[in-house]
Amino acid sequence: MILLFTDFGHAGPYVGEMHAVLAGAAPEVSAIDLMHDAPRFDPRAAAYLLAALAERAPAGSVFLAVVDPGVGTARAPLVVQAGGHSFVGPDNGLLSLVARRAPPASAWEIAWRPERLSSSFHGRDLFAPIAAMLAKGCVPEVRPRELSSLVGADWPDSLAETVYIDAYGNAMTGLPADKLSPKTRLTVGRHALRRAETFGAVAPGEPFWYENACGLAEIAVNQGSAAASLGLEVGSPIGVTGP
Amino acid sequence: MILLFTDFGHAGPYVGEMHAVLAGAAPEVSAIDLMHDAPRFDPRAAAYLLAALAERAPAGSVFLAVVDPGVGTARAPLVVQAGGHSFVGPDNGLLSLVARRAPPASAWEIAWRPERLSSSFHGRDLFAPIAAMLAKGCVPEVRPRELSSLVGADWPDSLAETVYIDAYGNAMTGLPADKLSPKTRLTVGRHALRRAETFGAVAPGEPFWYENACGLAEIAVNQGSAAASLGLEVGSPIGVTGP
Amino acid sequence: MILLFTDFGHAGPYVGEMHAVLAGAAPEVSAIDLMHDAPRFDPRAAAYLLAALAERAPAGSVFLAVVDPGVGTARAPLVVQAGGHSFVGPDNGLLSLVARRAPPASAWEIAWRPERLSSSFHGRDLFAPIAAMLAKGCVPEVRPRELSSLVGADWPDSLAETVYIDAYGNAMTGLPADKLSPKTRLTVGRHALRRAETFGAVAPGEPFWYENACGLAEIAVNQGSAAASLGLEVGSPIGVTGP
Repeated sequence: MILLFTDFGHAGPYVGEMHAVLAGAAPEVSAIDLMHDAPRFDPRAAAYLLAALAERAPAGSVFLAVVDPGVGTARAPLVVQAGGHSFVGPDNGLLSLVARRAPPASAWEIAWRPERLSSSFHGRDLFAPIAAMLAKGCVPEVRPRELSSLVGADWPDSLAETVYIDAYGNAMTGLPADKLSPKTRLTVGRHALRRAETFGAVAPGEPFWYENACGLAEIAVNQGSAAASLGLEVGSPIGVTGP
Repeated sequence: MILLFTDFGHAGPYVGEMHAVLAGAAPEVSAIDLMHDAPRFDPRAAAYLLAALAERAPAGSVFLAVVDPGVGTARAPLVVQAGGHSFVGPDNGLLSLVARRAPPASAWEIAWRPERLSSSFHGRDLFAPIAAMLAKGCVPEVRPRELSSLVGADWPDSLAETVYIDAYGNAMTGLPADKLSPKTRLTVGRHALRRAETFGAVAPGEPFWYENACGLAEIAVNQGSAAASLGLEVGSPIGVTGP
Repeated sequence: MILLFTDFGHAGPYVGEMHAVLAGAAPEVSAIDLMHDAPRFDPRAAAYLLAALAERAPAGSVFLAVVDPGVGTARAPLVVQAGGHSFVGPDNGLLSLVARRAPPASAWEIAWRPERLSSSFHGRDLFAPIAAMLAKGCVPEVRPRELSSLVGADWPDSLAETVYIDAYGNAMTGLPADKLSPKTRLTVGRHALRRAETFGAVAPGEPFWYENACGLAEIAVNQGSAAASLGLEVGSPIGVTGP
């Protein structure tokens, strides 16, 4: 199974052209749109989201991960293997958390290049063919890389920031909930938010945090929009207090 | 074939995570996004839309239907078999019309539970695995239910309300067109709309109704937006006059 | 592989219902959403976009192309074979460029009709079943057509207009870049834009044009929106000066 994780959005032919490459090269493999509204041009926020989603993916998945503001520049293309999955994407930090979360992990720089490589669409021309090869059990031409040499190797293990706002205005953070205690408070400005199990456990209009379905601490408001009422956007800092 | 019918929208990882579960459990089955903008948090409007779409689906389809504002509460998960299809979803009325439209129908409450069940995402954790089992011909652990005991068993056979507004501003109603006559008028406020075969049969700017491609009476304006010009939204009442 | 190219958008059940027909008729064939935001109701702009995308598609693809404002009127349904691909769609000019770009090409009018044909959704009822037949190597009932008799046979080989605006505000033109020289300037109002290889080669805020990933001349602004800053929309005329 190949899982696509990008910031391309659904408009235009971009996602479709990647699928056409995958179906041409690996027709027997399921290619699934995991999400295409990863934080745009923001490999750092995206890295924490990807690491959380990877933990719950079916074993042996190949992630085709493209949040790549540096497309066409010298940043290297990577393959990372960790936690039973493979990941293909740029060396801009996007794969740094998955490499660290599930040891032992390995990383390689992709030496293989396609015959025709556009300057603006490596998702289609470079990363998708590599993902298809990996899904078929083929090994492209690669060079080993030390994990410590990857961009993002020095990023924190969890990120006390908003990394995604969903359509309901709930704000996912880069904090795995299982590292926090039932008494931990998350602070946003002057608000100190307590943990709850579900929306129904707090009063309408009250902000709180809970463990969301991908395991991250998520800030929400019962019957309301946390992003609107607390002024949260991707990158907003979150305070962590208590045990 | 598994057909996904939800109110999740296309943003975020939610639809993608359901597909990953389906591809992991039933890789040989086609999983198709029928629609993900079903009336949000509105199982009643969605039930009439689902019943219309089910009539035109390929025989033997499995519908994974999730419009579930009560996720995490005590509402039961159901399987309904009717009209040659299977339906998986919550007992909140969403499946009540499909159960009634194509007799004989049967309903079961799902007793099976996954090892890991999040409080907020039963679409991924509970309903998707059940849909995969059904598509493979497996029977999950279930208990029979009387149709008359389902939420929505007392809802009307057809619903004189707007149930969906499309991107063009056309307003689908919960009224199957084949139950109405060529002379039936649908009224919206002070407007009494006549039936037409196609958009081209009425003057530009004129509101009318017609049988849409899924068999429902749909209110439209030639070269215009019926929703905007008539002030329609999901839930707006529609009057039915004449034969 | 079947590639869907429509102006339906992602809202509503329309794309999903086409996929259900394809999966029912040709379950072993990959059906891929190439794009669903082709220029709405604009077969002319869409024709130049489709021709560019077809050049880069995997050999032997079947394109299901529906930009069809005349659905329900007398316009004929067509099959075109060109450049190793097959194309299914209405005779409204949408397929005229693909028929001309990759000679020798052939065109047929589809005589086959389904048992149930709605007046408003030939994408589902007529074109999708034909696409499934072609993908399986079956030949539906057809009548040959002269290429010179197709709507759009007299349209220019390349179109000096904007044909698509993407989510970043970049403006694709109907001009294949390989027909233009490095010195060609594209003019928009009083702006004469030079060619660059990549975004990084021009100053922030500067408009330019480049060969985009599907081979078209695309007008862009480094770190900005060309559509907003130059006032471009689909159909805006573009001047071509120099070699």
